[in-house]
Amino acid sequence: MSWESKIRKVEPYVAGEQPKDKSIIKLNTNECPYPPAPGVRDAIRELEKRSDDLRLYPDMNATALVDALADFYGISSEKIFVGIGSDDVLALCFLTFFNSGEPILFPKITYSFYPVWADLVGIKYTEIPLTRGLTIDPYVYMPGLTKEPNGGIIFPNPNAPTGVLEPLSKIEMIVKGNPDSVVIIDEAYIDFGGTSALPLIDKYDNLLVVQTFSKSRSLAGVRIGFAMGNEKLIRYLKDVKFSFNSYTMNLPSIMIGTAAVEDRAYFEETTGRIVRTRERFKEELASLGFLFPDSKTNFVFAKHPDYSGDLLFKKLREKNILVRHWNKPLISEYLRITIGTDEQMDAVIAALKEITAN
Amino acid sequence: MSWESKIRKVEPYVAGEQPKDKSIIKLNTNECPYPPAPGVRDAIRELEKRSDDLRLYPDMNATALVDALADFYGISSEKIFVGIGSDDVLALCFLTFFNSGEPILFPKITYSFYPVWADLVGIKYTEIPLTRGLTIDPYVYMPGLTKEPNGGIIFPNPNAPTGVLEPLSKIEMIVKGNPDSVVIIDEAYIDFGGTSALPLIDKYDNLLVVQTFSKSRSLAGVRIGFAMGNEKLIRYLKDVKFSFNSYTMNLPSIMIGTAAVEDRAYFEETTGRIVRTRERFKEELASLGFLFPDSKTNFVFAKHPDYSGDLLFKKLREKNILVRHWNKPLISEYLRITIGTDEQMDAVIAALKEITAN
Repeated sequence: MSWESKIRKVEPYVAGEQPKDKSIIKLNTNECPYPPAPGVRDAIRELEKRSDDLRLYPDMNATALVDALADFYGISSEKIFVGIGSDDVLALCFLTFFNSGEPILFPKITYSFYPVWADLVGIKYTEIPLTRGLTIDPYVYMPGLTKEPNGGIIFPNPNAPTGVLEPLSKIEMIVKGNPDSVVIIDEAYIDFGGTSALPLIDKYDNLLVVQTFSKSRSLAGVRIGFAMGNEKLIRYLKDVKFSFNSYTMNLPSIMIGTAAVEDRAYFEETTGRIVRTRERFKEELASLGFLFPDSKTNFVFAKHPDYSGDLLFKKLREKNILVRHWNKPLISEYLRITIGTDEQMDAVIAALKEITAN
Repeated sequence: MSWESKIRKVEPYVAGEQPKDKSIIKLNTNECPYPPAPGVRDAIRELEKRSDDLRLYPDMNATALVDALADFYGISSEKIFVGIGSDDVLALCFLTFFNSGEPILFPKITYSFYPVWADLVGIKYTEIPLTRGLTIDPYVYMPGLTKEPNGGIIFPNPNAPTGVLEPLSKIEMIVKGNPDSVVIIDEAYIDFGGTSALPLIDKYDNLLVVQTFSKSRSLAGVRIGFAMGNEKLIRYLKDVKFSFNSYTMNLPSIMIGTAAVEDRAYFEETTGRIVRTRERFKEELASLGFLFPDSKTNFVFAKHPDYSGDLLFKKLREKNILVRHWNKPLISEYLRITIGTDEQMDAVIAALKEITAN
């Protein structure tokens, strides 16, 4: 025996590459191509003036940030939980809400962190296949129909990496059909044309909606995510958070995040611009023969009938364009291409034109 | 049944109060009374210039910060793990290293987060009483002597909230005597006159040393902690961290933390100043009849034979001085008083003189 027999061994999630070379067109981790809201710069100037305050613990409730979100979404602050990116929020949700003997449910093609968190917290899971159109079949998530109780449900809407948006009516069927489980809707990409399930949190006490500042708010580098749900769910989540780490959001996060939320006009302008670029990119991609589910996110999940995903990934890489490709069953033929600026997407189209002309 | 039966319910740790009133002399959470190193301000100015980069995910390995720590401590970067304050690092250590059926061991009087983390990750624990002099008896931590195997060992050195420093020889006995368990030394307060166990990590592969930027580096508001140990331990810890959240350290943390580590002279000057203030404060406290174990930290854990801890806490509070007091068995008669500036400690002494004169 040695100490190694007593430790937890896990297969970690592997995030997309972060190349240092700034000349690379980086479309592999769904970052926003536009800088954060102008107020962020002012917030950093203010932080410089307050730099002596860094000696003190930050506000453990991140009140300024939580209140700004409450204002933005028109809900009470007691219904909001903030964390170090939505990954932190979701990991704490797994720890808090998925703690029974029943398996949790999520789609077979989805955010690949879900099985990693399930393994980490030691809960079983059942992967539910998508339909042939890559949509979610809500009936399969109903305990009355499957005759098997579940320990909780989680899925992204729009789904990742497919980009497919589900209508609110389907979300509501699943939430309503599972009153004995917490249902988490991971809305990392909701701001690019989707309809949030947020209005349903007052109707269903088992619904939690999770969002992030990393995509639509251009702040991947600051790590802010948040959950919205009824006060009771949020309180349980806070209890677990405060059992893990009292102070998570640092002073820079709180100040920068607050400034970003306060600028609704900039948020609407930049997300609107990404949506317009995406729609144009989809048309051009289709004209090159690519196939893809209709995306309502800041990426397109596309394959070509004549060229393998692996080949397309490598050829683009040679042309200094980095997209995401997984060598995994079901999705290995696809590329996930982040929507960048118009210029960047023109470069992608030009490159794909060349590659598919041969 | 309802969803509530499926969730994790915990009793969270309660951190010290963070009053908004700036006129309060705040000596309750062991923050440093001096501002962070001057380079921190430059780092924030640099961050302002780079604010557009906040749209990108940060370096998930926090390379600049890890390399600066490696330089400072003269060890390789592969032996260092960084996290969101030492609480995050320690919580991840509990999750990673304390994963057997055997109980872990820690002192009966110690950092009150340990039992909270043990409950959170579902491991049993045995609290080992301190000696009458509030020191650790290493023999009780030896599996050969207690005849009971343990699942791991953790304690702070100096201990919290007693402030008592253990000699390295005792630490080495415990580490050497437990080759089948990971032994974690929580050195949050080591920089105020203690000798770190760091040199032992090359000799013992089961030893992990954890430190923080919150006390001696004046950066409680930025949330940085770190662990040092052999490459294998660090790799296991990283695997769990990357299974929880890929990107934890935000760009501001990395830049600010790096600047703080690079200024060794400022670090030595401010910690030295706190040590001198503490030694003077201890003398004056003793002359007022207070009793306390000899502290090698940035706080003193003191009681008075004629006045209850509760009364002293309340009387100081009335005089706008906030210290820490726990209404808990064994320690309810004590106050934990953070070492602030000379002026602040003069105010504490003057207040205690008044209180104990009645």
